[in-house]
Amino acid sequence: MNTSAQSSAFAPLQNDTFIRACLRQATDHTPVWLMRQAGRYLPEYRDSRAKAGSFMGLATNTDYATEVTLQPIDRFPLDAAILFSDILTVPDAMGLGLSFALGEGPKFAHAVRDEAAVAKLAVPDMDKLRYVFDAVTSIRKALNGRVPLIGFSGSPWTLACYMVEGAGSDDYRLVKTMLYSRPDLMHKILRINADAVALYLNTQIEAGAQAVMVFDSWGGVLADGAFQEFSLAYTARVLAQLKKEHNGVRIPSIVFTKGGGPWLEEMGGLDCNVLGLDWTVNLAKARALVGQSKALQGNLDPNVLFAQPAQIEAEVVKVLNSFGKPHTGAGTGPTQIFNLGHGISQHTPPDHVASLVKAVHDHSRKMRA
Amino acid sequence: MNTSAQSSAFAPLQNDTFIRACLRQATDHTPVWLMRQAGRYLPEYRDSRAKAGSFMGLATNTDYATEVTLQPIDRFPLDAAILFSDILTVPDAMGLGLSFALGEGPKFAHAVRDEAAVAKLAVPDMDKLRYVFDAVTSIRKALNGRVPLIGFSGSPWTLACYMVEGAGSDDYRLVKTMLYSRPDLMHKILRINADAVALYLNTQIEAGAQAVMVFDSWGGVLADGAFQEFSLAYTARVLAQLKKEHNGVRIPSIVFTKGGGPWLEEMGGLDCNVLGLDWTVNLAKARALVGQSKALQGNLDPNVLFAQPAQIEAEVVKVLNSFGKPHTGAGTGPTQIFNLGHGISQHTPPDHVASLVKAVHDHSRKMRA
Repeated sequence: MNTSAQSSAFAPLQNDTFIRACLRQATDHTPVWLMRQAGRYLPEYRDSRAKAGSFMGLATNTDYATEVTLQPIDRFPLDAAILFSDILTVPDAMGLGLSFALGEGPKFAHAVRDEAAVAKLAVPDMDKLRYVFDAVTSIRKALNGRVPLIGFSGSPWTLACYMVEGAGSDDYRLVKTMLYSRPDLMHKILRINADAVALYLNTQIEAGAQAVMVFDSWGGVLADGAFQEFSLAYTARVLAQLKKEHNGVRIPSIVFTKGGGPWLEEMGGLDCNVLGLDWTVNLAKARALVGQSKALQGNLDPNVLFAQPAQIEAEVVKVLNSFGKPHTGAGTGPTQIFNLGHGISQHTPPDHVASLVKAVHDHSRKMRA
Repeated sequence: MNTSAQSSAFAPLQNDTFIRACLRQATDHTPVWLMRQAGRYLPEYRDSRAKAGSFMGLATNTDYATEVTLQPIDRFPLDAAILFSDILTVPDAMGLGLSFALGEGPKFAHAVRDEAAVAKLAVPDMDKLRYVFDAVTSIRKALNGRVPLIGFSGSPWTLACYMVEGAGSDDYRLVKTMLYSRPDLMHKILRINADAVALYLNTQIEAGAQAVMVFDSWGGVLADGAFQEFSLAYTARVLAQLKKEHNGVRIPSIVFTKGGGPWLEEMGGLDCNVLGLDWTVNLAKARALVGQSKALQGNLDPNVLFAQPAQIEAEVVKVLNSFGKPHTGAGTGPTQIFNLGHGISQHTPPDHVASLVKAVHDHSRKMRA
């Protein structure tokens, strides 16, 4: 798929704070964006979704995907945009039949439960995901250089959870039964997923994504030992295949493992630029465990946004202070990208997001003074 | 409540492996019991429950509670029994109206959401929990010294989660909104809960419990900083009030925080004998972080029990080996109590539990040879 002609024609980046922080370069404030920032807590998003009819109606339509991706950027001075899409587009393109029942999570019509189903899996033709790459290019054009655009995918393990369970799960019984009783099948799924995710992210980069993020949303449900073997190893397999730059511009990569706190030291060895952290992690401890090679992204509890603005500000300050003074001056050093420790709740008052973004920008400037 | 006359009349303990391991004394094998070992995966439990009509029908009837507590002890050579009860009996005794709808989790009729509701809370009269203490005494008699009996309670924070949410929750939005916006109310609830839990556990000890366990099932959902202030501090407040011995016999205490991996170092400072660990924790790392004062309990992923016996045995060996060689000889040293990292699934084949217990006993004897 030739998208490089398009992507070289994009407007120059005006706010590169996020990209610089990913690369551990100094910035005049700590950049901030929020996981699921384009979402149901915004009335304008709810209007768009009503017009589109469904979540996938939004995600598969270039205009809608562009519209909702830019909504939080228009409302708040966020430092990055993230592609509006779903983490499960890749297994959908493998033919598993993704759907979203009203008020429920994602479901697959064809769960992968046995050897025959695994034998049918293959890296999908990227043409089946053209709607995603078209959205990336459209969003990048619409952003017009205001802030960088982050592309993303679910991690190989997280995709496998949904592929085997067929839906979300409380106990991951089916996928873990396969993992413990047929590790050969699980490894086969994960190899295919890793190669598919790498190709998918590289094609997003060609289409215009300026950074990419791997969401290992369910890595934290694995046992010690199993995490390293069935999640971390395949995230590493994705990273090994990722483009590090495009058209001469560096493309930072972010890995976020929800519940990954127990394995920070091991994740410090991943070949990515940024580790995303949930709210259980102490940022000072994380810096010590991860080492000097990575920026850290996170990690405010999304529920802080239900408190009043003064309390939100106090909690933002705690998170910034727990990371400590970021790098200033030339070269590279410790940097943070402010974010929530998980996706923003649909019940969040939008005004409280404004308070959060302002608090991050204001206090992080003071910390550098 | 005078129960000491009864408890001094109990039969002497024949298998003290669990108690010795709690106290970091040498044993000839690693003791094993399973969280929720009396439960729906056992056909005899399902029969008892059908007779009793409901979960609380089992828990509030002395004969049924005794019957189901002993069922796994009769079936498997487990090294401890645990009181059959619910973690939410204390807020129920506070008047919040606990119920279990069929196929759903627990619910409270009167959730604690505002200042007026908090003002009404008080440490409940232990007479309202007499059914629990009667069950403890009855079970202890029925055990007749075969294995020790563990009493338990939910932690102050875990009780508060249910009291404020009114039920289980995916996001803990209501309880965290109170925590961040009205920390004064949250602290008031937690003080009352801590004093109630301490009194409740001490009364279980007087009634015959030979060890006690605090289930901090939801401590792991808290942010770093909030965990220390709203969960750990109140678990410590419980422990400070607990009886350390009864009738001249030491009563070990266990604290289990699901998802507590990020705070093992801080939990090492708790005044308890054992820390329970979930499956995300590496036992060798945990030993290093917790220090020399505590035994460790855990931590097999319950989903391992869906694999075949040979694979269950291999995973048991991994967990035992990750802890390392336990203390032998005189004095005290590192000891493990084998358990799952969370409650056993209702879908578990009972024969697989037999394989697990045998593997723990066999391999742990070899490790000492």
